[in-house]
Amino acid sequence: MSQTIDFYFDFSSPYGYFARHGVDALSARTGRDIVWKPIMIGSAFKASGNQPLMSQPLKGPYSVHDWERMGRLYNISWQLPDPFPIAALAPARAFYWIEATRDAEVARNYAMAVFDTYFGKGIDISSREVAADLGQLHGIPRAEFLKAIDDPIWKGRLKEETDKAIARGVFGSPFFIVDGEAFWGFDRIPMLEEWIRRGGW
Amino acid sequence: MSQTIDFYFDFSSPYGYFARHGVDALSARTGRDIVWKPIMIGSAFKASGNQPLMSQPLKGPYSVHDWERMGRLYNISWQLPDPFPIAALAPARAFYWIEATRDAEVARNYAMAVFDTYFGKGIDISSREVAADLGQLHGIPRAEFLKAIDDPIWKGRLKEETDKAIARGVFGSPFFIVDGEAFWGFDRIPMLEEWIRRGGW
Repeated sequence: MSQTIDFYFDFSSPYGYFARHGVDALSARTGRDIVWKPIMIGSAFKASGNQPLMSQPLKGPYSVHDWERMGRLYNISWQLPDPFPIAALAPARAFYWIEATRDAEVARNYAMAVFDTYFGKGIDISSREVAADLGQLHGIPRAEFLKAIDDPIWKGRLKEETDKAIARGVFGSPFFIVDGEAFWGFDRIPMLEEWIRRGGW
Repeated sequence: MSQTIDFYFDFSSPYGYFARHGVDALSARTGRDIVWKPIMIGSAFKASGNQPLMSQPLKGPYSVHDWERMGRLYNISWQLPDPFPIAALAPARAFYWIEATRDAEVARNYAMAVFDTYFGKGIDISSREVAADLGQLHGIPRAEFLKAIDDPIWKGRLKEETDKAIARGVFGSPFFIVDGEAFWGFDRIPMLEEWIRRGGW
């Protein structure tokens, strides 16, 4: 059994952003590597019949308020970007390309920068130019980057990862799978840790 | 400012059931009284556009699995009742009647018995007869009970409490409001406690 934690998220997910700030510590506490898996949550929503939080009466305003208080509680920079939500195709495709052509560490650092640019600074990371700028900051030439995100191979890879996630039951972001056991949501990190500590129950 | 925690729930809500097992300890830890507030979550779902968990692809099966593992983790009797979900009108109307004609303590004990009968024993508590049997166990004469749950006053009271809850932003079960601050879900009890401890942030 692989000693990892699969971390599914969408770059447009606020709770995914807060989880992004917690997974390194989670890795340290559990001794497990985190496998970062950006997906297109819109496809999972289609499969599950869910709607984006912002479009839901009552739950939308609650969520906006919740993100603000989470930012304050955890001392994590937060702003509600405009536009929000977005289809973050460019950085998600780039993630898998970077992971395959560089390594998981560079891809992870890139992913953290994408999240922080969107929710920390409010900059639209679905823009190809912004996504490429962030790549450049991580030593990835712009031209190469822009070519990769239009390449059918990386378009297909993102779709494939999303389809595989849905097949594994993923319907939200963040969503964790550890030793085959699924945990949905930022709030479930403590239970996930308990699962690892006990080896299930 | 009242030193209480408003605890909104539907008797047909599994996460409400798990919360029911936690609120007495929450009250002891925070020094606050819990104000139990059964509502008709179906009305809140209509207002928010939500669907019952069981009818949602992916999220439904996840939830069924989650309830089982929560029962094992917290050592709380659990079974998925059949039928589920139900419109638990009879016990919810009875709750407000008992609270008004006896007191909050009797109503709370009745509510706990209703939850435990449904999710602990799998018995359909939407049945008037079952709801009245549980009343009898708490010293409430059957005939009086059955009359009360058909009385427009208590039908209206439940509707009114539900409408007030929705007006306060309640869209799920369990849902807590403390000093005007809303916390949705069993998983948010730790954050709610932190809110009380700090006096907000």
